[in-house]
Amino acid sequence: MSNLAQQIEFILELDNLKTVKRMTVVKGDGNRQENSAEHSWHIALVAQSFAEYAKPSVDLNRVIAMLLIHDVVEIDAGDMFAFAQQENHAQQEQKEIAAAERLFGLLPAHQGEKLKALWFEFEAAETDDAQFAKGMDRILPVFQNMSNGGGSWLKHSVSKSQVVQRNLFLKTSAPELWQYVLEQIDLAVEKDWLKDL
Amino acid sequence: MSNLAQQIEFILELDNLKTVKRMTVVKGDGNRQENSAEHSWHIALVAQSFAEYAKPSVDLNRVIAMLLIHDVVEIDAGDMFAFAQQENHAQQEQKEIAAAERLFGLLPAHQGEKLKALWFEFEAAETDDAQFAKGMDRILPVFQNMSNGGGSWLKHSVSKSQVVQRNLFLKTSAPELWQYVLEQIDLAVEKDWLKDL
Repeated sequence: MSNLAQQIEFILELDNLKTVKRMTVVKGDGNRQENSAEHSWHIALVAQSFAEYAKPSVDLNRVIAMLLIHDVVEIDAGDMFAFAQQENHAQQEQKEIAAAERLFGLLPAHQGEKLKALWFEFEAAETDDAQFAKGMDRILPVFQNMSNGGGSWLKHSVSKSQVVQRNLFLKTSAPELWQYVLEQIDLAVEKDWLKDL
Repeated sequence: MSNLAQQIEFILELDNLKTVKRMTVVKGDGNRQENSAEHSWHIALVAQSFAEYAKPSVDLNRVIAMLLIHDVVEIDAGDMFAFAQQENHAQQEQKEIAAAERLFGLLPAHQGEKLKALWFEFEAAETDDAQFAKGMDRILPVFQNMSNGGGSWLKHSVSKSQVVQRNLFLKTSAPELWQYVLEQIDLAVEKDWLKDL
């Protein structure tokens, strides 16, 4: 198959991420569940908007590239709710690795390997770029739930410590945003949108 | 208002692009209409996938930044079908300019002005980056319609010359893709998905 044919196959396969539903809802659209494609677009622009809070070492373009592909594996593996049981996470991870092999493997090798490496970097969350990217992925639901009467937190009885834990990447990668998130979490507890645990 | 408060307001406003419906449909999701947020994500990855066909002068990161924001104005102005009557386009342009002022104006000035300039550059389609970006926005529906039995072309009686005209940006910005699109258009005429006009 030519490079072009492979690239088109990958591009058409991406269409399927538009069918993967998340727990957060789109308030302006009858509270339908958000899908992972539109979520990926949104957090890429969150990163763009919040670039000034990142460490100087962070490369915004790499962060955006990571965020655009970070959920692509859900085409095969599905979305797992952020606050699902811990034992389910290991199984999900195996499914996602297989998905990364298959999906990025649709592309010509030089491209597929590059995107796969970027996806693994995001997952490992060790580099500054990956940590800032993770922070962007996790701060957006904070804004969405705070603007939507508690949203998926309230619906799924999420507790304060879970949200704190989930947003820890911000602590070093974007301290100003971390402070803001802590304030919002306290506010959410006051409003009974998060359990005080 | 602090920078952060303004940025959060912009980010929450972006949620509304998820409610703007386009003519193309998501085949894997019961043929529902695609929205402009997920479309923007998709074409950013089209640009990523097709980077090798761009002129060497093209800056992929700027292209992706353009594609991520190019439809944001539709939050206020709505989506206009690509093949709508010509007289409606002028009115739409005025609405979009007002939308760009309001929406990018939500951000702190230094950021808003930068994104507004990027949006105007995309619209003017004069720079190499903007022409390649436009090409990406317009080639994706070709793949989607070809893989979906004619899709929005067939449904809205679109003609060959309209699709050729719409994809002209590829002719100089990505000649290899331009050749491919011409072949696909001929194939679509053969299949009666496009009128031979």
